[in-house]
Amino acid sequence: MMVEIIEKVRRKETLTKKEIQDFLTGYLKGEVKDYQMSAFLMAICLNGLSLEEVLAFVECYIQSGKQLSFAQEDCLVDKHSTGGVGDKTTLIVVPIVAALGVPVIKMSGRGLGLTGGTIDKLESIPGYQVERSLEEIRKQVKDIGMVVCSATEDIAPLDKKTYALRDVTGTVSSIPLIAISIMSKKIAGGAKKFVFDMKYGEGALLETKEEVVALADLINKIAEHYHCKAEFVYSDMSKPLGYTVGNRLEVYEAMAVLKDNLKGELYDKCVHLASHMVALSKKISLEEAIKEVIEVLENKKAWEKFQAWIAYQKGDLEKMELAIEPIPYLAHKEGTLQKIHAKEIAMLAKQLGAGRDSLEDEINPSSGVVLLKKEGDFVKKNEKIAYLYTEKQTIPNMDSCFEIL
Amino acid sequence: MMVEIIEKVRRKETLTKKEIQDFLTGYLKGEVKDYQMSAFLMAICLNGLSLEEVLAFVECYIQSGKQLSFAQEDCLVDKHSTGGVGDKTTLIVVPIVAALGVPVIKMSGRGLGLTGGTIDKLESIPGYQVERSLEEIRKQVKDIGMVVCSATEDIAPLDKKTYALRDVTGTVSSIPLIAISIMSKKIAGGAKKFVFDMKYGEGALLETKEEVVALADLINKIAEHYHCKAEFVYSDMSKPLGYTVGNRLEVYEAMAVLKDNLKGELYDKCVHLASHMVALSKKISLEEAIKEVIEVLENKKAWEKFQAWIAYQKGDLEKMELAIEPIPYLAHKEGTLQKIHAKEIAMLAKQLGAGRDSLEDEINPSSGVVLLKKEGDFVKKNEKIAYLYTEKQTIPNMDSCFEIL
Repeated sequence: MMVEIIEKVRRKETLTKKEIQDFLTGYLKGEVKDYQMSAFLMAICLNGLSLEEVLAFVECYIQSGKQLSFAQEDCLVDKHSTGGVGDKTTLIVVPIVAALGVPVIKMSGRGLGLTGGTIDKLESIPGYQVERSLEEIRKQVKDIGMVVCSATEDIAPLDKKTYALRDVTGTVSSIPLIAISIMSKKIAGGAKKFVFDMKYGEGALLETKEEVVALADLINKIAEHYHCKAEFVYSDMSKPLGYTVGNRLEVYEAMAVLKDNLKGELYDKCVHLASHMVALSKKISLEEAIKEVIEVLENKKAWEKFQAWIAYQKGDLEKMELAIEPIPYLAHKEGTLQKIHAKEIAMLAKQLGAGRDSLEDEINPSSGVVLLKKEGDFVKKNEKIAYLYTEKQTIPNMDSCFEIL
Repeated sequence: MMVEIIEKVRRKETLTKKEIQDFLTGYLKGEVKDYQMSAFLMAICLNGLSLEEVLAFVECYIQSGKQLSFAQEDCLVDKHSTGGVGDKTTLIVVPIVAALGVPVIKMSGRGLGLTGGTIDKLESIPGYQVERSLEEIRKQVKDIGMVVCSATEDIAPLDKKTYALRDVTGTVSSIPLIAISIMSKKIAGGAKKFVFDMKYGEGALLETKEEVVALADLINKIAEHYHCKAEFVYSDMSKPLGYTVGNRLEVYEAMAVLKDNLKGELYDKCVHLASHMVALSKKISLEEAIKEVIEVLENKKAWEKFQAWIAYQKGDLEKMELAIEPIPYLAHKEGTLQKIHAKEIAMLAKQLGAGRDSLEDEINPSSGVVLLKKEGDFVKKNEKIAYLYTEKQTIPNMDSCFEIL
């Protein structure tokens, strides 16, 4: 009986594979109710799951939908970020890697809560088509070596249903549940090699590095079980990545890296991630991969790939514009900019119209923040430190985003 | 925001009074969804609540409905059992106490899962009216000094809504949640003095004595906060109380105690409970109270009060009959009856038609079990050890109910 399965997790007893299957397929069929699933998930958040239980969950999630497979399977590489504020690396890394002949199929999601979503960023490009059928994906990979699209409905529908519930029941930040959610989609998606960008700190899903390392360890065990190869790159997300937070603003920043090789943290991060993906796929050393990556950035092959990709998915970069007058934000005091708080910047961006609280909320693609200063910079009182892009009437106070000492 | 309140409990942080109020009144209004409430409840089950949080919950539960008050407030006494198999003490204790001039208003519930409910037992008496308005309660207490009726819809509706959810989400056996549920109804019900029959063991809500003592301690703290007086009586419920399990069968057993002074554990238990109630209300010593209680049992005043009460609430004892041929159940081996397992007997009685799995299930008032032997008795192979009353076609094997060595 379903209540007894919940009670077992509550008492920290190990579930059998059959109990997990019964409960999860019962949920997909609607026999297990949302209110039972959320109690079950909360018990998991607090009592954890064994590796065997995690593997049974992943298998059920995969089996709940279709599993894709591709001809290029053995060189196909996927990249996953555990989410952060201002993270636009996918927009940069995927064309770099594809420009080096490594095929990438990247299925992404929308932003929710404090983290942005790649799909929202791409939809801010007029005309860009985020939905791709399996056939279209195959053709596009063959034609230009890369696709970035919405996760199809067919991939791990159990994860989709569960994730929506976790989001509204305070059961998101659980290491086993995060690992199950990520890996069931990745494995069903058909790639065999993955680079994970593991974020920790204020703006990320998991706050401490210890938790993120534990998550990586669990992801790695799941990958091994499915004979897949996973690599991990760690980054502190307590400050936003790059200068922009907001969908269209982030597309512009990605273009600046690809087209003008805008240097800085974002550039370095993208080189790092792309090199891992290339090394993994081509089975070359990281040093060689870094050289290749920098080369396609400098010779603009990555930028050309970006343009070809956006055009292939019907996006029109020419028609993209911000069409909002930026509002300068002035430093409230003089001193050194000690800290830019990612979480507070994310909340601000959401208030400006760049994010959503629930999946029904409308977002304004042009809204967001451009940071004019980096941590460590000296600022004078009333010096411009940011531009705000918004059509909202009231501008929130953002002094708490910046720690000036 | 509601999700943040759930996350606070999850992280074992203390909620403010306002957060508790917002969440609970949000739930009553339907703004907080069942799936959010169940995650919240599971987090409480696993992380607990501080005394201040418990008091804030109780206050919200009370405020969610009406609070009754009675002229006899200072001598009015209430009795509560934490639930057990075959527990028909209310049917016996309340008329004893009322026969001694101590007014009692007892609001009861229906049986669910493995524990029976006083209301189901009373409804097995043809004609008995379980619903009473507040006005009818007042008049009846004035006229005959006692009422046993359904909890009105107006008393702590928040508890009613929450309890139904806990039952289907594996969140019943939590000490703070049980204490909140019991005490909010008791205090809103208007009595100031309570005797609690605290059950532990196999057939009870909480299995260990330690847990039950912790529950009593919390109940006592809540009582003190409301300037009420609580007393506690403990009993092991790993075997059924008395000889019968099943609604109408239990009414007959209660009548045998009151009318014929049938001696045994049930008799002793009822004398014990009633004496505590009388001592508490009349401010006399327990010894004096015991003497008075035995007197009204022996001189049949308690039995007369029982008859007057049932008649007042339109029950007709003359029309009550079992109308089922009992099926003898024979011992599967010879030996000493070491153990009668309350939980298994309760499951059996439910299968026979005496209990329900969900509140919509129909019960058969005549169904149940009569135990013919006590623990410690010697039984021969194929000797009758129980009678089963049922209209079901298949008789479950009940060997596991009896441990014969």
